[in-house]
Formats: sequence, structure tokens, C-alpha cells
Amino acid sequence: MERFNTTADTICAISTAPGMGAIAIIRLSGNDAIRIADKLFVSVKKEKRLADAPSHTAHFGTIRNDEGEIIDEVVATLYIAPHSFTGENSVEIACHGSTFIQQRIIQLLLEKGCRMAQPGEFTQRAFLNGKMDLSQAEAVADVIASNSSAAHRLAIKQMRGGFSRELGQLRDKLLQFVSLIELELDFSEEDVEFADRSHLTQLVEEIHTRIGSLADTFQYGNAIKNGIPVAIIGETNVGKSTLLNWLLNEDRAIVSDVHGTTRDIIEDTMQINGTLFRFIDTAGIRKTSDKVEAMGIERTFKKMDEARIVLVVLDTTETLERNSDFLRQNAPHWEGKEAVALLNKVDLSNEAQQAELQQLVASHGLSSIHISAKNNLNKQAVLDELIQRSGIHEAETEGVVVTNLRHYEALRNALSAIDRVRDGLQENLSGDLLSRDIRDCLFFLAEITGGEITNDEVLGNIFAKFCVGK
Amino acid sequence: MERFNTTADTICAISTAPGMGAIAIIRLSGNDAIRIADKLFVSVKKEKRLADAPSHTAHFGTIRNDEGEIIDEVVATLYIAPHSFTGENSVEIACHGSTFIQQRIIQLLLEKGCRMAQPGEFTQRAFLNGKMDLSQAEAVADVIASNSSAAHRLAIKQMRGGFSRELGQLRDKLLQFVSLIELELDFSEEDVEFADRSHLTQLVEEIHTRIGSLADTFQYGNAIKNGIPVAIIGETNVGKSTLLNWLLNEDRAIVSDVHGTTRDIIEDTMQINGTLFRFIDTAGIRKTSDKVEAMGIERTFKKMDEARIVLVVLDTTETLERNSDFLRQNAPHWEGKEAVALLNKVDLSNEAQQAELQQLVASHGLSSIHISAKNNLNKQAVLDELIQRSGIHEAETEGVVVTNLRHYEALRNALSAIDRVRDGLQENLSGDLLSRDIRDCLFFLAEITGGEITNDEVLGNIFAKFCVGK
Repeated sequence: MERFNTTADTICAISTAPGMGAIAIIRLSGNDAIRIADKLFVSVKKEKRLADAPSHTAHFGTIRNDEGEIIDEVVATLYIAPHSFTGENSVEIACHGSTFIQQRIIQLLLEKGCRMAQPGEFTQRAFLNGKMDLSQAEAVADVIASNSSAAHRLAIKQMRGGFSRELGQLRDKLLQFVSLIELELDFSEEDVEFADRSHLTQLVEEIHTRIGSLADTFQYGNAIKNGIPVAIIGETNVGKSTLLNWLLNEDRAIVSDVHGTTRDIIEDTMQINGTLFRFIDTAGIRKTSDKVEAMGIERTFKKMDEARIVLVVLDTTETLERNSDFLRQNAPHWEGKEAVALLNKVDLSNEAQQAELQQLVASHGLSSIHISAKNNLNKQAVLDELIQRSGIHEAETEGVVVTNLRHYEALRNALSAIDRVRDGLQENLSGDLLSRDIRDCLFFLAEITGGEITNDEVLGNIFAKFCVGK
Repeated sequence: MERFNTTADTICAISTAPGMGAIAIIRLSGNDAIRIADKLFVSVKKEKRLADAPSHTAHFGTIRNDEGEIIDEVVATLYIAPHSFTGENSVEIACHGSTFIQQRIIQLLLEKGCRMAQPGEFTQRAFLNGKMDLSQAEAVADVIASNSSAAHRLAIKQMRGGFSRELGQLRDKLLQFVSLIELELDFSEEDVEFADRSHLTQLVEEIHTRIGSLADTFQYGNAIKNGIPVAIIGETNVGKSTLLNWLLNEDRAIVSDVHGTTRDIIEDTMQINGTLFRFIDTAGIRKTSDKVEAMGIERTFKKMDEARIVLVVLDTTETLERNSDFLRQNAPHWEGKEAVALLNKVDLSNEAQQAELQQLVASHGLSSIHISAKNNLNKQAVLDELIQRSGIHEAETEGVVVTNLRHYEALRNALSAIDRVRDGLQENLSGDLLSRDIRDCLFFLAEITGGEITNDEVLGNIFAKFCVGK
């Protein structure tokens, strides 16, 4: 990756969504952005050049090629360093949204000395120029990708620096102690203790708890970002597909297909009260002697393990014995998860049947809702149950939520470093060993905000996931 | 249509291409645009309101809902009436390109008193506020839709007012004469002639020629806009499909499918030197007794009538007799068109065969090119021939080219009005009758630039073809 060494270049990209629109925005950033734009842009006020204009001003004019032919009428908006998104000189050209014009202007910019921006390169420059830390920069991509209000809220919070502030406080406290310990080392012959060990133990406990609970939010955070995983399980004849369609139907407009991580499992998602739920298709679960089918079922079981909520669908018209068998055999699938039984087809069964089944289900520790997917009975109760069991609301009120796998891994590393500090304190380890572990913890915390990242490849990987033009 | 009566509203729309991008632009226009934006926008410089800022300035800040929750960090750019595209107060909000954020901001704008813009409504307002005439406004849509450099060039020229100026000159001359004639009517008892009839005859001839040649450019203009129609004809075994694929292949990247006007005929297009060519599929031509198939062939023949260029494909390995029969039977299809014979499969035939066929073809008045679609022989010669016979270059150097059917029809009407003036002059018609016909001609010319359009429905139809946000 040569990303780091190329910040001297002036980069350009189409920043608006691909395709035809009324307007498109082409963005330039770099030392020469204004000079290059002036080579193509002719203001309606003929004598006026962008180079002479103040920052944050918009100018109507035309883009012309070397032959003086008008490519388009545009508005060029100027941002002079450091007062821009990237911290560099920037120009945004708003042209007509024809793909032909967008391409022509990009082509002219390349001829005049720009190069095409790599994905995320504008944001990467904002990070390198100190306009935001790494976790904020990563949140920019999350803001753009967010498709539910909960995910959007977390991403905005992170972009605004909520996570960074939280981490900064933890680091400040640790830094203070490690400085004292390292001061002791300078006076090692005198056997002094500037850092009170009991205070340190208390602090380490505090930080351990905080990092631990931050890391724990990842499960929620990931669920908010990618949807709360919900498995619907039941025998083939209980109406699982009907149930799924029934749940999704009302919100079809905002349902989109999500490709699961295994790529071949496609999942339906839906928003309920602004929270995304991801339904795991378990249609294929049944006993089989077919090898290929068995492999598919194996995979489905794995996906089900990811589920946070399990909807156990039972047929109230079925014999109690059969339902009992199913519950006994499949109980491991919802162990430790939020599970609720949906007693389906209540339009076809009598109250005695339903009461018996409800009792059976209760004996397995499950609460139940009477439904009829076919007759649209008690849908709202199911949706309310999903919201209640999502655990999202508690997580949100807690403040900072980790949504990024990289951050989660750094927190896990920081946590084991602080574990070592804790053990070391109990075992009365020497100051230099304690110091090393605290420094480790500090390193991992700093990794999240990018303070300690000197590895171009890591940065490259982070920004490569962005869309072009951002 | 209540479009006219609603210009008091402040309208908003997403103006960038639909979908996710790095940035999206939401546009507001109307009296209250700035006031409404200020209800949602909080500048980073807290005390600063858009209402207090000068025109053409960009402001960084946040969009917040009534609860103070931050929806996004945005840049709001201000255009104060009349110095905007629409001539009204306008604000452009550049937000992150998440579809969720775009929808949320639009929703908040609607809550605060905007209404959704109808397609083309921004441009319609620009027209109603005198920022551009109707032919210029229509060119805006053409600029956005243009997908070849030739079509783009014509649209830009029209948007910049080239057509309007040309029409203005014609109208000025006619107006001068009609005024003199109408002055005569005031003095009718005295039998004076302020308007020299021989001068008028000369002017009418001049205008007739000019309007006629403008109307004639429509064939070119339409071809540039929608692609020069090219028919490839030949017997089923001569390699028409191979030829088409061969021609298109190199430029596959810029080939797109165009739905023909009959909807069920799909045509391939390709650009050669920036000019769009549209290939008419004639694969189905052969003698048949099947009724349905015959109807399809009938339709193909009709489409072929539209062709400007006909490529007659002959197989050099076929008997001279058979080729001769084909030429004789199908000659009507290329009568009056630009036709060239492509002598195919020269890799499989000998020179004597080729020379004989070339002679036969020449006797039918066709020039010929030896090709082998399979062995990639002489492709450039075919492309050059297409360019040369497109007639596009002559048309372009002539200046104004009519690309719009509405303009063409108005020109045809103006032409028949001026015809009546010419006849009237020959027959020594009275001044009041002459005057009426000249006024008719002026009316039709004015229709193009919108000077005489008072019919809301006509305007509605014109702008309804625009995309939303423009």
C-alpha cells in the first residue's frame, strides 16, 4: 500500500451516488485543488478566479476543455485549507447529473494533474490531517451505510466523537499511573512507591470493568448495525414460511435482502420501531440421510447459534405428544437465548388444545403468544415481544456502544493486558513488568482512535472498505 | 395541473442520483427556503443563522430534529433570490449519502413547511422567473440525459441559448414587417404601402428557407439524440448477428440497450467517435406464411424505414445468382438511404468471387467493403463508413440543430404559416390577411421559447418528463 506516501497528490472523485441525477458532485482535494479547478473553470464574472475567492464561497460558471468548448454549467464551491473536510484545499464542482458529463469532467481533471481518489481517501486524509481520529473516520462509513434509525444514531454518535472521549478518559487515568510507576523505576535503588498500589488496584478494577462492559456492548452494537438475529424454528408443517411472510409483509417496503457472512444464506430483514431485525431462514431443518442436505442443515444450525432471539413455532392443532417431542429434542437450540413460543393456527384449534399446549410450553420455561399467521391474529404482540427481547433500548441508554469488529478486538486485547496488570498487582510484580502491561493496554486503546497506528497496511484496509468519493 | 398556482410554496427534493453515495444534495427553493432551513440547521458557529449570511456562501453545521438529536453533519449553501438557478431563495444541503439520512432530512423539511418538488419543478420555476426561456429549460433535461458527446454538445448549445438567439433574429425581422403592414391598415383609406412588397417577398423567402432548413435539421438532431438508425440487412446465412457482435464488441463498455418506440423491439447502440449509432435488428426478415411472424416482419420493415444508413451484408461464398436475386428483391429497402454493401466471409472466398460480387453490387449503385467479421478484417473501414455517412458533421458545423419533437412541430407550423404569407404575397392578398398569417408564424416561433405559452397543461407536460430534483 502506497497510500501514505501520496498525500502530496491532488485527488478527485465523483462523490454522489452513481448514475444519472439532477446534480452530481465532483470533489477535489489537495494542495493543487484550487489551481487545477481554475484551469477548467470560467466564472460568469469573467475576470474572477477561484484562487482569489475566499473560503466557503460558491461560484457559478462553466467547465471548458482546452478548445474552449463548454462541457457544462456548474457551481464550484471553495474550501481553503485547513477549513475543509480533509483539512486540505478542496473544491466541489456541482455539475448536471449526466453520467457523460461526470466522466468528461473527471477526465479533464485527470489531464490537468489530479489522480482518482482511492476508496475512503478523502476521509483518510481528514484523519491524517488531524481533523478526526480513526474511530470517528470509521464512523463516517457507518453513517453512510446506516439503514435504520438505531444504527444511524450509533454511527452519528461515534462520528461526533462519543467513543473517543470515553477512551480518552480511560487512557488519561492509566497514563497518570504508569507515569508514577515509571518514575519509581528511575529511583529504583531507593525502593520508593510513588504509585499507591491499593489505589492502582482500585483503578485497574475500575478500568477492567469499564473496558469489559464496553467490549460487551459489541454484541448489541453489532446487532444494531447488522440487525438483531432472530431464528424461527419449528417442524415443517407448522407454518414457518407463512409466519415470516406475515411478519415481513406489512413492512415490505423497507425490507431488503442481506447476504449472510456465509454468502449462500440469504436473510430477510425488517425494521420494527427503527430497530433492524434479521430473520434466519431455518426452513431446511429436518432429519435427513442425504449428505449434502445434512451439510446445509449443519450450516443452518451454525447460523442459529448466532441468533439472539428464537421464535419457537408450534401448531396448536398437532398432538401434544408430537409438540412435546419437538420441544424436548430442540431445546438446546434456544438455550441461553431469548426464546418465545408462538402457538400458531389458533383459528383451527379449540381452547382446551391451546391451554394444554401453553402449559407444556411453560413447563419448558417458555412464555407463549397465541397467533394465527393466516388470520392475522396477534401480530403486534409478536412485534412487541421482538422489540422487548432485543435488549436494544437498555444498550442505547448506556451511552457508548461498540459496533466495529476492529474496535472490539482492540478492546479484547486491552482487556487481557489489564488482566495481566491485575494479576501482577496481586502477585506483587515489579514496577517494570507492571509498566509493560499497562503500556500494552494503552497501546490497544490507542489503536482504536488511531493514535498508535503506524502501519500503512492497517490503515489501507480500514479505508479500502469505504465508498469512492468519501 | 395546478403547477402554476403553487409557486408560492417552498419545494424540496433530493437532487443527486438515487441510492447510496458519499454525499447527497437536498435542494430547497422558494420564498421560505432559508427560513425553513434555519429551523433544522445549526451552524458550528452557534449564533450564526443562514438568514444572516450572504448569498453564495457555504456553512458547516448539523441538521437536528425537534428533540435536538443530530441527524447529520452537513454543509448548507445559500443562494439568495434572484441569484439562484430558480431565481428564488434556495438552499442546498450536502449531507452524507445514506438513503436513511436523505429520507430523514426530507421528512423534517416537509414537517417544517416544504412540499416535495414535482419532476422538473426547479427548472420550471427558473423558466417562470425569467432565468431561461422554454427551449433552454428543455435543454436542461437533454443535458442530463445526454450520453454521447454529440448529443451533449447540442444540448449544451441549446441550454446556452443558441437556438433562442437564432429564433429571436427571425422573429425580429418578421415583427418589423408586420408592424409596417399593420400601420398601413390604420391608414387603409389612403392606400399607402409602408411595407415594400418586394422587400417583404425577399424576407419571406429568406425566413422560409431558414425555418425550412432548421426543421430539416431535426432528422439529424433526433438521430444525434437517439442514435443514427442503422439497419443491417441480408439473408439469414450471411452472418448478420456475427457482424453486429463484431461491430459492438470493442465498445461493449459503452453499449446500452435502447427500447425502441414500439417497445418490443430492442436495439443495440454504440458510439463511434462520440456519435451514437442505433442498430436496428432485422434478424427476422424472411418469407413466411405464419401470420404472427408476418406481423413481426411488417413491424421490422417499418423500423427499417427509419434507418438512415443500411448495411447490405452479402456472402462472398454464395452464388452470384442468389446474391443478385437478393439485391433485386430488397433494393426498395435502401432506396433513398445511405447504403453500403459489406462483402462478408472474404476469408472463405477467392478473389475472382469477390471481384464478381463487387461488380454486381456496383451495378446496383452500391459501393462495397470486403470484410470478415469472423477474422476481424476491415472493421475500421466499416466504422469510418458509418461516421462518414452519418451526415452528423455537416449538420453540426451548420450551427443550430433541432433535437426536440415539440420544437420541430412548432417549426413545421411556422413553415406552413410562412407558406401562406408567400402565397398571399403572390396573390396580392390584403394587408390584414397577410398580417394574420405573419402573426401565426410569430406565434409558432414564440411557442418554442415559451413566450406565448399560457397553457398550464402544455408546461406541465414539458416538465413532467424531467427527473425529480431538477
